Amino acid sequence: MVRFFVTQEELLADTPILTGENASHAKVLRLKNGEAVLLCDGQGRECLCQVQEVDGEQFVLKVNERRESITEARVNVSVYMAFPKADKLEYVIQKATELGAYEIVAFPSGRCISRPDDKSLKKKLERWQKIAASAAEQSGRGRIPQVLTVSSYAEALKRAAQADRALLFYENEKSTTLKMALNQKTYQTVSLMTGPEGGLEEGEVAQAIEAGLQVCTLGKRILRCETAPLCALSAVMYDAGEF
Amino acid sequence: MVRFFVTQEELLADTPILTGENASHAKVLRLKNGEAVLLCDGQGRECLCQVQEVDGEQFVLKVNERRESITEARVNVSVYMAFPKADKLEYVIQKATELGAYEIVAFPSGRCISRPDDKSLKKKLERWQKIAASAAEQSGRGRIPQVLTVSSYAEALKRAAQADRALLFYENEKSTTLKMALNQKTYQTVSLMTGPEGGLEEGEVAQAIEAGLQVCTLGKRILRCETAPLCALSAVMYDAGEF
Repeated sequence: MVRFFVTQEELLADTPILTGENASHAKVLRLKNGEAVLLCDGQGRECLCQVQEVDGEQFVLKVNERRESITEARVNVSVYMAFPKADKLEYVIQKATELGAYEIVAFPSGRCISRPDDKSLKKKLERWQKIAASAAEQSGRGRIPQVLTVSSYAEALKRAAQADRALLFYENEKSTTLKMALNQKTYQTVSLMTGPEGGLEEGEVAQAIEAGLQVCTLGKRILRCETAPLCALSAVMYDAGEF
Repeated sequence: MVRFFVTQEELLADTPILTGENASHAKVLRLKNGEAVLLCDGQGRECLCQVQEVDGEQFVLKVNERRESITEARVNVSVYMAFPKADKLEYVIQKATELGAYEIVAFPSGRCISRPDDKSLKKKLERWQKIAASAAEQSGRGRIPQVLTVSSYAEALKRAAQADRALLFYENEKSTTLKMALNQKTYQTVSLMTGPEGGLEEGEVAQAIEAGLQVCTLGKRILRCETAPLCALSAVMYDAGEF
């Protein structure tokens, strides 16, 4: 079934209408009267519709069922990633979206080599949000994860610490595994924090513990900064019973 | 500690000597007498040494301890991936190596768009093996996973089916999760099989079941062909107690 991301207003309309890009897309697909389509507001709400009338540039829809998205994860996992070099963040945004991340938060840390200035940040955020949107569409998600940045490491810690499980992955942590951290009790929200290419500094790890995060290992092999968050996210989704 | 991949002969020598590229690397690192280095044969055997004598282009080492690699996974996970487009396979080889895969096996399937001809395959395999070697070095592995290709889908199935757990991931499988498949009983060897961009054909899935593979889902979201194997590999390593 074809899926379209629409505004909340469009989703809530008694007679939703596909316009603009969605209409062009529907035209390319040659949608006919009676065909089923799924509207998503990108916030987890969906509307099962069928094409009622094709009126030139517009596709008028009939609402069959309104529901919460059925493809979203049961747990909300926030991916906190220190600003990496080049296009690694874009890559993580795309993959983390496919894997069901609730949001992606980029933050600065001591060894970050790259860190966009405020001037370029607005443009970059728009681009990053577009990547999340298209990955959400391709993977069939009902929700587009928000991509955001925080201006300090301390702010990232404070925000991450609010989750039921706030975890920081550190290559020098040898004893506490992700499994130990997750198996303590049930969880609904999880924060997964990983460092930049050079890793986090010892002082930053201490600061994280201070802020209430739990430090764990992702195993005996050193993962690249763009691999670690996706490995952790996959494992958490598995642990949470997603697959 | 600096790690060097050497031949089995070099590793087994009473007085190992760093030569060629390794020696140049050691020179760049300005290794001095008494400094500790780790030699790996890329097959899981290691030798803890220290520099005994720096003799121009050569670094003569003293053996302190011979041991099995301590960074290899306790389970052998083989990643079977249908030939994807472009550089996606290279990307999966790099990441699967970091994540601890035992081997990476590329195979043809009905909807494969790209499939190297025998002429270019030899060159490609050399390149793929190099990617695995450098990822193994960077992630601190004691073993370089072998990258190989099989010439038919049937051959891939037959080979994959020999593992304790032979799993095929299919987007239309809704009931059997990876967790169900893994929790049946303990396992030492696992095969993880995923399709190309267009997915596997129904007939191919039936053929896999016939060959003894178990079909499972990776969840409600559709993963790209380069994301699925890494998601599954991460989850299996987590399930096996690696982190």
